[in-house]
Amino acid sequence: MINYSEFFADRVKPMKGSAIREMFKRMADPEIISLAGGNPASELFPSDELSKIAGKILMTSPTQALQYGTTDGYPKMKDCAVARAKEAGAYNDGDAVLIMTGANQGIDLTAKAIINKGDKIVVENPSFIGSLNAFRTYECELLGVDVEADGMDVCKLEETLKANPDAKLLYTIPTFQNPTGTTMSLEKRKRVLELASEYNLLIIEDNPYGDLRFNGEDVATLKSMDTENRVIYCGSFSKILSPGMRLGYVIGPAELLEKVEMLKQVNDVHTPMLTQMMCVQFMKKYDINKYIEKNRKLYKEKCQCMIDAMEEYFPKGKVEWTVPDGGIFLWCVCPTIEDIGPIVDKALERKVAIVPGTNFAIDQNLPSNKFRLNFSSASKSDIREAVKRLGEVLNELL
Amino acid sequence: MINYSEFFADRVKPMKGSAIREMFKRMADPEIISLAGGNPASELFPSDELSKIAGKILMTSPTQALQYGTTDGYPKMKDCAVARAKEAGAYNDGDAVLIMTGANQGIDLTAKAIINKGDKIVVENPSFIGSLNAFRTYECELLGVDVEADGMDVCKLEETLKANPDAKLLYTIPTFQNPTGTTMSLEKRKRVLELASEYNLLIIEDNPYGDLRFNGEDVATLKSMDTENRVIYCGSFSKILSPGMRLGYVIGPAELLEKVEMLKQVNDVHTPMLTQMMCVQFMKKYDINKYIEKNRKLYKEKCQCMIDAMEEYFPKGKVEWTVPDGGIFLWCVCPTIEDIGPIVDKALERKVAIVPGTNFAIDQNLPSNKFRLNFSSASKSDIREAVKRLGEVLNELL
Repeated sequence: MINYSEFFADRVKPMKGSAIREMFKRMADPEIISLAGGNPASELFPSDELSKIAGKILMTSPTQALQYGTTDGYPKMKDCAVARAKEAGAYNDGDAVLIMTGANQGIDLTAKAIINKGDKIVVENPSFIGSLNAFRTYECELLGVDVEADGMDVCKLEETLKANPDAKLLYTIPTFQNPTGTTMSLEKRKRVLELASEYNLLIIEDNPYGDLRFNGEDVATLKSMDTENRVIYCGSFSKILSPGMRLGYVIGPAELLEKVEMLKQVNDVHTPMLTQMMCVQFMKKYDINKYIEKNRKLYKEKCQCMIDAMEEYFPKGKVEWTVPDGGIFLWCVCPTIEDIGPIVDKALERKVAIVPGTNFAIDQNLPSNKFRLNFSSASKSDIREAVKRLGEVLNELL
Repeated sequence: MINYSEFFADRVKPMKGSAIREMFKRMADPEIISLAGGNPASELFPSDELSKIAGKILMTSPTQALQYGTTDGYPKMKDCAVARAKEAGAYNDGDAVLIMTGANQGIDLTAKAIINKGDKIVVENPSFIGSLNAFRTYECELLGVDVEADGMDVCKLEETLKANPDAKLLYTIPTFQNPTGTTMSLEKRKRVLELASEYNLLIIEDNPYGDLRFNGEDVATLKSMDTENRVIYCGSFSKILSPGMRLGYVIGPAELLEKVEMLKQVNDVHTPMLTQMMCVQFMKKYDINKYIEKNRKLYKEKCQCMIDAMEEYFPKGKVEWTVPDGGIFLWCVCPTIEDIGPIVDKALERKVAIVPGTNFAIDQNLPSNKFRLNFSSASKSDIREAVKRLGEVLNELL
């Protein structure tokens, strides 16, 4: 018998299956109402349009759709990505763009191009587990900075950088952050850019939810205010078209993205052609902003539905939450307890899946009294029912 | 101005754009006849069938096709991968299977799960640049073992292992190897397995071309003779269905593949759903072996066409080549010179693209008198014309 663990690289030895991944698998149980994942609303997917588009592409451009493509992406898809980025002010002349098999790949491979073992990377605490785990595979030290209602605590960021002036990279989801749903204020964004300049940091701005605002006014992206070309911008079509198509992009300095492109070349060679071509045709034939608008409207209703149910069913004064202006997540805190674990387990017994805060923490060994709720995926009636059951559990255990 | 090279991780500092990647870009020049890439014949792509299949999937199963899937792969696609692997004896009970966005991703992420900085990895010399470059990004030491007409020189393999008993992994393309087109004999395969057992090595068996035999008898895969579960088998649909769909798979010990799955989770989360579902439906509705048979027949003709033209146009006695029994590559040696570089450049001036041997070498700084020709992609008339022009260049410069 081979002892495979002898062969494991150091980078994977500490990795454990993520709770979200387990949740994904559990979602196969049709009785469970999942508030756990990050799925967009599938009821709005433009499937008829995409069906016609896919059929036609394969009839009229079969070679292009089925043959190898280039690593940087299908040229017209790169144009689409630039068009979306420009709506967020996130494209500068001279920037390079790479099409990725989902934005997460852009984050993973950008990290691979930058992070040496032992490097210090500043991240929001809590933050998206997919990115944190990607960074962890490059054996870096994650420096967590707390997230407040208006985004990253910039005083703590400054303290962190003073104590760690050799930090190399800052990773942020400034708009409708995962998991907290919070949006960084304009003032804080400017301060983050100042500090990045002062301490010579690169920034990865991850913006998968920026298009999903349903209240308030847009806040300028970091990239749009970046006069020093420090920001690498990661955008996604997962939340505005389809996550299953796995289409994302990275925009940033060409010198850096050349390395990322080489890492993609040895990873998946290129993003599948058909899905890229489908996205291009969809954006050509339809107004994607109208489609996004439908999603915004629905998410506003679903978010309000969740908040109404929480106000009705959650024990009074024992659960606090943020009210997001967009995105797909609500973040809840139970200040009277230390560990949300038993509540998450009991909720699952009652067929409601939620993700405990530990999963988004820099130190996953500390207990967390927080949990994340997703409001984009379930139907309004399921949201109500799930929150009701969760309320029963919270009333019992808090 | 930011000095981005300050921020580069050590692993990407030595990386240079590969000649193949450059060739891919050059292929956009419609005047160039490319014998450089590894493209399968696009004239046989089952585009009508795939068009109908794609259209129907998006009409009848839009949520599944467009929503997030699981990292390990769409279950029916995993069944398809296992079915293909079983035809090569490459699936054991208890093995895990992961669907990858192309087999290259399987190689990259398996390497990421295994290789620490400084680890010793045994590879064929020459070998596939995509895999070599993937390994290089994990800062390992590549130990090259020469390839003979019947595959890896197993005496040299033994010497290498004696001198490096701490080597961890052996990577091989035993059948219709890239770039040499050679197939490892059964005896050598058995010896490789013995040596792997003696020196406690894991093996990655990369088999993208195994289905493309057009002469001779199949040789058993390493995986089919692996009684110790040392072999991780990488299969691909790129050469038997469509490379642009980016569908590959890894089959191997569950304990090891669990780590690879986590690395895929933080890379592209999962392989796009639509392409997976299309492959499943294609294999359900059509006999993929019949489709492969058509490819084999065409490749046999194209290979013969290339050899006929080489015999006619190449300078007598100055170019040697292997005659492959399958696959898509021919490997040429010019024993009277040291460096093929000027010939490759001059061929490109005459609008013929070929890849110099340096690209497949372990030490890319040494000159090579070898070059690789692809016979699957170009039409027979283009193959003839390209070999004629290449023959003119060879006659001039040899």
